[in-house]
Amino acid sequence: MPRPADGRKRVVVESVEPQIDAGRFPVKRIVGDTVRVEADVFADGHDHVAARLLFRYCDVPQWTTVPMQPLGNDRWRGEFSVSRLGEYLYTVSGVIDHFDTWRSDLEMRIAAGQDIAVDLLNGAQLVEEAAARAGRDDADALRRWAAQIRNEEKPEAAQAAALDPALAATMAHYPDPALETCCEPELRVSVDREKARYSAWYEMFPRSAAMEPGRRGTFRDVEARLDYVAGLGFDVLYLPPIHPIGRSFRKGRNNAETAAPGDPGSPWAIGSEEGGHTAIHPELGTLEDFHHLLQAAAARGLELALDIAFQCSPDHPWVREHPQWFKHRADGSIQYAENPPKKYQDIYPLDFESADWLALWDALRDVFLFWIEQGVRIFRVDNPHTKAFPFWEWCLGEIKRDFPDALFLSEAFTRPRVMQRLARLGFSQSYTYFTWRNTKQEIAEYSTELTQTPLREYLRPNLWPSTPDILPEALQIGGRAAFLARLVLAATLGPSYGIYGPAFELGEHEPLRAGSEEYLQSEKYELRHWNLDAPESLAGAITSVNRARRENAALHANHNLHFHATDNPSLIAYSKSSFDASNTVLVVVNLDAAHTQAGWINLELDALRLRPGETFQLWDQLSGARFLWQGPRNYIELSPEKMPAHLFRVLRRVRSEKDFDYYQ
Amino acid sequence: MPRPADGRKRVVVESVEPQIDAGRFPVKRIVGDTVRVEADVFADGHDHVAARLLFRYCDVPQWTTVPMQPLGNDRWRGEFSVSRLGEYLYTVSGVIDHFDTWRSDLEMRIAAGQDIAVDLLNGAQLVEEAAARAGRDDADALRRWAAQIRNEEKPEAAQAAALDPALAATMAHYPDPALETCCEPELRVSVDREKARYSAWYEMFPRSAAMEPGRRGTFRDVEARLDYVAGLGFDVLYLPPIHPIGRSFRKGRNNAETAAPGDPGSPWAIGSEEGGHTAIHPELGTLEDFHHLLQAAAARGLELALDIAFQCSPDHPWVREHPQWFKHRADGSIQYAENPPKKYQDIYPLDFESADWLALWDALRDVFLFWIEQGVRIFRVDNPHTKAFPFWEWCLGEIKRDFPDALFLSEAFTRPRVMQRLARLGFSQSYTYFTWRNTKQEIAEYSTELTQTPLREYLRPNLWPSTPDILPEALQIGGRAAFLARLVLAATLGPSYGIYGPAFELGEHEPLRAGSEEYLQSEKYELRHWNLDAPESLAGAITSVNRARRENAALHANHNLHFHATDNPSLIAYSKSSFDASNTVLVVVNLDAAHTQAGWINLELDALRLRPGETFQLWDQLSGARFLWQGPRNYIELSPEKMPAHLFRVLRRVRSEKDFDYYQ
Repeated sequence: MPRPADGRKRVVVESVEPQIDAGRFPVKRIVGDTVRVEADVFADGHDHVAARLLFRYCDVPQWTTVPMQPLGNDRWRGEFSVSRLGEYLYTVSGVIDHFDTWRSDLEMRIAAGQDIAVDLLNGAQLVEEAAARAGRDDADALRRWAAQIRNEEKPEAAQAAALDPALAATMAHYPDPALETCCEPELRVSVDREKARYSAWYEMFPRSAAMEPGRRGTFRDVEARLDYVAGLGFDVLYLPPIHPIGRSFRKGRNNAETAAPGDPGSPWAIGSEEGGHTAIHPELGTLEDFHHLLQAAAARGLELALDIAFQCSPDHPWVREHPQWFKHRADGSIQYAENPPKKYQDIYPLDFESADWLALWDALRDVFLFWIEQGVRIFRVDNPHTKAFPFWEWCLGEIKRDFPDALFLSEAFTRPRVMQRLARLGFSQSYTYFTWRNTKQEIAEYSTELTQTPLREYLRPNLWPSTPDILPEALQIGGRAAFLARLVLAATLGPSYGIYGPAFELGEHEPLRAGSEEYLQSEKYELRHWNLDAPESLAGAITSVNRARRENAALHANHNLHFHATDNPSLIAYSKSSFDASNTVLVVVNLDAAHTQAGWINLELDALRLRPGETFQLWDQLSGARFLWQGPRNYIELSPEKMPAHLFRVLRRVRSEKDFDYYQ
Repeated sequence: MPRPADGRKRVVVESVEPQIDAGRFPVKRIVGDTVRVEADVFADGHDHVAARLLFRYCDVPQWTTVPMQPLGNDRWRGEFSVSRLGEYLYTVSGVIDHFDTWRSDLEMRIAAGQDIAVDLLNGAQLVEEAAARAGRDDADALRRWAAQIRNEEKPEAAQAAALDPALAATMAHYPDPALETCCEPELRVSVDREKARYSAWYEMFPRSAAMEPGRRGTFRDVEARLDYVAGLGFDVLYLPPIHPIGRSFRKGRNNAETAAPGDPGSPWAIGSEEGGHTAIHPELGTLEDFHHLLQAAAARGLELALDIAFQCSPDHPWVREHPQWFKHRADGSIQYAENPPKKYQDIYPLDFESADWLALWDALRDVFLFWIEQGVRIFRVDNPHTKAFPFWEWCLGEIKRDFPDALFLSEAFTRPRVMQRLARLGFSQSYTYFTWRNTKQEIAEYSTELTQTPLREYLRPNLWPSTPDILPEALQIGGRAAFLARLVLAATLGPSYGIYGPAFELGEHEPLRAGSEEYLQSEKYELRHWNLDAPESLAGAITSVNRARRENAALHANHNLHFHATDNPSLIAYSKSSFDASNTVLVVVNLDAAHTQAGWINLELDALRLRPGETFQLWDQLSGARFLWQGPRNYIELSPEKMPAHLFRVLRRVRSEKDFDYYQ
């Protein structure tokens, strides 16, 4: 059994939180966030310990230290804030605080009337030792204190000096570093910009953006659509792949096995003789047009997100140039994608077991870097769960090192462990199972998991009521009320959400066939023309919801979701508060798209920061209506006809007679 | 961002359980135990993975591998048993199972009527690759299979060979190790003999063992007491320190500040001119007498446990020989123990911050080794929480390396984190807070924490109703019924327990003064004479309880405690089952020492392995009474007069008319 280097380090530091997989992965924060760190710090015996939180930005060698405060039961807490994009390191240290132990013992001896002559000399020695570790000014002051404490001729002054709070405060800066224990390993925080947590996405197919029916939309048409999207209140405009589309085995309308002449093909069948992942489909425009679109979007507060789908059509240049990046069948042909017995012959997956994996990794990273060079900073990554995990950790790390403002949304609709691993590996946001969570219990359980378990340290949810691949049953059958309810849920259960438009705001709900989640006439396989001015459009409601999100800081956070009981299973109620507690919202949604539902809500007033007897005002951010409530039990009635949800801001200060000047 | 050595290792292994502090400490098991290991093992995409559990005894270089079984949701389970004392290592590996993926795809292709000619060739290639990794016999067999699969002239035989279960079974032995992922770091299991988990301790002061009042007891008197202790059913006889006792500042009777002439002093004030921690108090006997006692005890199934208290009286030889092992005050005197304003001038603590810590550590380890050389293998360690943690980890590791049968009971009545740390550092058993847990809720909560949380992987409780230092309120005021209830609780809530005798069986309950937990006329400071034949002795009940413990394997385990609801707060009910489920006990205790209590118990039949409608027999192992019960709801009535507890064995097989030969 080897001995430790210094067996006199008596302090233990353990159970540091937050911490993911023993420090294997960083926790995630946003610029300006506070990182609250807790740890168990203790030693043998009765000596007092002091715990300190140490942190530093990754390329700064010096640690900054913060004293931690005891919470009881050997738990300590400290915090620091992160002000820069990139990675911070933190750790916790503990040391025996001999001076504090001595001082507290001394107080008890004095109270018991004991002789403290020798104790004073013991203490003076501790102060002199600290003086040797201190900077000049403090060292001088400490030596003066020590001399006073040693002065046996003036015992009262000696005692006063010993207990001087200023001495204790100075001593706290100079623990003996030789016997300090540091937590191993150092832990990491990955810091992103705010959009990593709080964002509103609008997805649209550029080729369906033309104003006139039948014409193929271009980047210029998307530009013409920007005011509309910005007016709805979104801040990310996400485009499906914009690259040349393969011709071999091209899919036709409604996912037909063979395309008819003129069928445009799926944008996810990437690559043709015109180029691959760094080329633009010639019918959408030029790279110059793309730059113009980026700037026009930015001018309206819209950031462009590109879809990165690492798969190739058989016509992709890589198939010719790097056949070793694909798996080959025994007959020498390249293995197409399949999920036996289904075959997807228009798609070749990349082989992450290729002997040439180093070059493959470089090429994939360079796709991101190419678009970053063009000015893109947000990527929606298609099916990351079908690419090797080690690749993502390396690739995202490489890019973030130089572009810490880059954001990556993981489109992994797969098993929980896989989704969680991708989030830990570095994806900034993740699609979720929200799309299929419809009932009160399902929504409450899943949202609680996302916001109240260690998941919240690294998996940032992005909630989508639907996507071009998924028209969920609830929207197929629920009509306008279901769309509105799912909109409000997505926009308020998490700080990031997105809609696939204009299909969503126009209530598109016909499936390809019964039992399918594919859209009939899916835009994936054909051009569509959308009438944005249709009277049934939900544009107005969406605009209100996005305005409410902007104006209520409680909806920008993901740590703070609290469900409140209702006596009706169709009524779900939850509240959120901003970090500084200045803003609180209460959301109530009628989950029954068919009937008016009414019932009693039983508020947990603590979660709303309300006192038991307090009267408070609820101000509906969607309808503008206001209600006066008091106490936990209150009545709710929501009809599916108009808006099946309340999005209340909770106003604590209700005027009363006491507010009149003459009340006093 | 560095790339991994081989980025093609696509499998992730994470969340391996059991695991303590990311593998920093071993989990604990008993010889013959099964170690059940679970892990999340998964990869990107749709390929099947295979997970294996690897384990080895610490000094065996080769791993043994066991296939793990999928539990769903990417969780896998495997197990191995530990047959040797000492340390085992284990880890989990995962690999893409290309053959299994291919085989399962092939079945779906065949079911869909697809052409499988090329697929068969793909598979033959996989089989040939495995043949290259296999031993000669398997390699030959695999090549024969591959040839059959490749034979295009006999497509039906090729298909049959491809799907041959024997081929799949053989292939499972030869995954491609190049792309295998192993969990880092390797995890450890520390394996003790059974007494580490299951033991019944009897503590007694040798100096009070004389048959005649007034005479000082010796090792020979202890020998004369062995039949009595063994007859009670205990298997560990624990003696407080047997070393010479200091004279300086010796405490008198009832902890008086000064000893009267003839007062024997506290056995924990260790060391005098006659010697220190490796010497025997001359009035107890010689080393030869001690050896004789050890053997006599062993002959009766009793193992001796010694008390190791690392502290010194001012007369201890170390004070003279190694003054640097003690802390010095500013006036040059050695710092005595204190808890200001209380002073314990008869005790000098050791200074674990001594510059000479290396020699101090050696000396302390050598104390254990000295007594191990004499034949002792069980140590009750006094106040380990006032000695440095790094010392314990090193010292216990040093000793267990050479004497893996050595056991250490941690007497740390202190804060939870400290107790837990000591258990993780290597102590085999721990005193607990049981001594102060009296109400139904207190007992259920604490026992659940000890048996149903990760604590159970490393902290083995040893439950004591009282100790020479602690006469708890419940025993001061509750009389005989309280002693019996606490006895049954201690002996059945955990597999290890102990009593401080003969004080316990004779119902000693007078405190030094009101509000104190010290005994009046404590044996710590004076000789006592005990009348073992007193009619009020609980010896009979203790003998029954220990017999019931021996005869019911359910009471030898610590993983299996389950509380059942009762409608009376004074009635507590819990069950335990043996590992192999062949033995189940149900314990019901009346916690009210003053009144008969009755009520309804609501059994969870699952925990008792009973079917809902089944009739079962309860056989009280203490009184011999038998009851027939059916269903969850049953009546209990317990009087404090005789025995305020049932200790039922649950007998599932109740005879009925169907057992008669002529019933058929």
